[in-house]
Amino acid sequence: MDSISLSEVTVIRRTHLGFMHSFKQPFSGVTRSPKFCSSKVEGSNAISSSVSSTKSQFGKGESLARIADSGYKMNGVNLKNRTLISSVKERLLLDVYDDEYGGVVVDHGKLPSNPYEFSSMLRNSLLNWRRKGKKGVWLKLPVEQSELVPIAVKEGFEYHHAEKGYVMLTYWIPEEEPCMLPANASHQVGVGGFVLNQHKEVLVVQEKYSTSLNTGQWKLPTGFINESEEIFSGAVREVKEETGVDTEFLEVIAFRHAHNVAFEKSDLFFICMLKALSDKIIIDNLEIKAAKWMPLVEFVEQPMIKGDKMFKRVTEICEARLRQRYCGLSPHRLVSTFDGRPSSLYYNVVDGNDDDDPSHSTCTADFY
Amino acid sequence: MDSISLSEVTVIRRTHLGFMHSFKQPFSGVTRSPKFCSSKVEGSNAISSSVSSTKSQFGKGESLARIADSGYKMNGVNLKNRTLISSVKERLLLDVYDDEYGGVVVDHGKLPSNPYEFSSMLRNSLLNWRRKGKKGVWLKLPVEQSELVPIAVKEGFEYHHAEKGYVMLTYWIPEEEPCMLPANASHQVGVGGFVLNQHKEVLVVQEKYSTSLNTGQWKLPTGFINESEEIFSGAVREVKEETGVDTEFLEVIAFRHAHNVAFEKSDLFFICMLKALSDKIIIDNLEIKAAKWMPLVEFVEQPMIKGDKMFKRVTEICEARLRQRYCGLSPHRLVSTFDGRPSSLYYNVVDGNDDDDPSHSTCTADFY
Repeated sequence: MDSISLSEVTVIRRTHLGFMHSFKQPFSGVTRSPKFCSSKVEGSNAISSSVSSTKSQFGKGESLARIADSGYKMNGVNLKNRTLISSVKERLLLDVYDDEYGGVVVDHGKLPSNPYEFSSMLRNSLLNWRRKGKKGVWLKLPVEQSELVPIAVKEGFEYHHAEKGYVMLTYWIPEEEPCMLPANASHQVGVGGFVLNQHKEVLVVQEKYSTSLNTGQWKLPTGFINESEEIFSGAVREVKEETGVDTEFLEVIAFRHAHNVAFEKSDLFFICMLKALSDKIIIDNLEIKAAKWMPLVEFVEQPMIKGDKMFKRVTEICEARLRQRYCGLSPHRLVSTFDGRPSSLYYNVVDGNDDDDPSHSTCTADFY
Repeated sequence: MDSISLSEVTVIRRTHLGFMHSFKQPFSGVTRSPKFCSSKVEGSNAISSSVSSTKSQFGKGESLARIADSGYKMNGVNLKNRTLISSVKERLLLDVYDDEYGGVVVDHGKLPSNPYEFSSMLRNSLLNWRRKGKKGVWLKLPVEQSELVPIAVKEGFEYHHAEKGYVMLTYWIPEEEPCMLPANASHQVGVGGFVLNQHKEVLVVQEKYSTSLNTGQWKLPTGFINESEEIFSGAVREVKEETGVDTEFLEVIAFRHAHNVAFEKSDLFFICMLKALSDKIIIDNLEIKAAKWMPLVEFVEQPMIKGDKMFKRVTEICEARLRQRYCGLSPHRLVSTFDGRPSSLYYNVVDGNDDDDPSHSTCTADFY
């Protein structure tokens, strides 16, 4: 029987429910770049050779699969035959779940433990999916079954992404159609906190691990946001972890987009204005060498800030915000009926467009 | 010899050079969450048992590795001995590159092709790294050598991430220290284009692949940005691809942050204001069913827009922007001397802070 665990179904269904671009989510059949999966793995079997070798080597299995498949759909087959056919089919084909875009998702909870059995089932399944006109195949291999990875690669599967517990492989079947499988996550997200206290002092840190270029520099506290963490709470957490200072998030005042930063991925870095709620500094010895409150005028005058286009501009923006001459984007928690997913929409607060959320700071609000 | 290809060195060095949070980049020794690599793989050898079994099984190799290692550092060894020791060492230990944070990066260009040889070398190398007090180990296995994956997993390596051509595995050696290896990319980035023409009509599309909830809905053109693509050019490209309409990017007017969207990753969706430069619609048959220009008043009155908090708010913002009562963030290309990396800084244009870039639209600029 084609089946899959409930959690897997949830994950897949979830991917179709995005904001306005839901149809572009993974498993949606639409990708940003066909090149991600259109070419075949070098040194592994090409599809055609795989098919032909499978045909000769697994000729019997193939025809059994055909019988099993037709038998499965047939009415009027007596119980004995049906059971026989079903057990033959179960041995020969991998359990899958159809996605909504003409593809299949292999049920990773029902993978055979024997690599030879897996190899044979995978080959038969590929023939079966091809015959049925299936498009993309998703094969998630748990780390406990890593011995199946080379087998899948040999059959022409490609790595798609990996997390600690598994590696996801994909196979695009239609040779005449461009590969429409979606790509992997592409960005890491960082936050930097511009924290000001009531004495117009900026919270700055010196890093323990720094390149020779920035050794001894006083900088804003920064860090990556955690998995599923909000930008606004991530900024508050990072400042607290590194310096011990409690803060209130005000606005994203700017963000920087850079490429090829880590593992050839891109980086989005959000510069956040935060209001200090406490003064006492307790540094995190693991990553911070020193932290202190530095008068804003002194911060601005640092050669590293003054002499650099980017740092200078960011500092100017922060100063403009303090003079209420600048308006960043503030977060608003909203649930869209479209997908029912709670999410944060970051936008300016102007022109009375924030009547649903009057408690939130506006750009004309004083810092202190 | 400890060595690595030039391109690998470039990639690693690059990761230390970010904007203000450079020290948090991968390979930096600082992570957002120790849980990402602190626990051992179930069913695989724990470190201690791996070490003890290695000791008994590879006792000879271990002592040879010791000799080779000390010999390598020794002065006054004659050439003959040195060559011998070097060749013994080369057979026993994997070639690595030291990172700047006490870890090692295995040279994937010099992996042995024989799985048994790899297994033996990996065990010896782990002993050697442990003895030397090394911390994180990065092991990139090209797809052409996928047969090495189960061997590395058996030794306690964990999946870190994967791209089409390789899977990256990691091993955190110090048992008494929390794992400090950085996490994988966490976000996908989408763009939506609010395109207006001179007749105050909005460019809308109907998707080919849509959930039952949004079948027949007229929506903004949306999509994912490509690898290393800018948000501003990604928005222009998506609109062009889907509808054939040429546009000029004006501003990011808001963005949405949502979690657990695809493969349990997060999603950043940037809503962009674009000015139409052409009128003629030529749809992309692959993903779009229909596209048209819809009067703004009609767009706003659609039940899907009116009845939904998120869509309603986004539409209000776009209208406020048209009345010059709202100011989004516009991109500015800047190179920071800090890392020499060209990147895009998105911020408001206010208060004369954009004297370096006077050509750019400001929030008070008319659409037409």
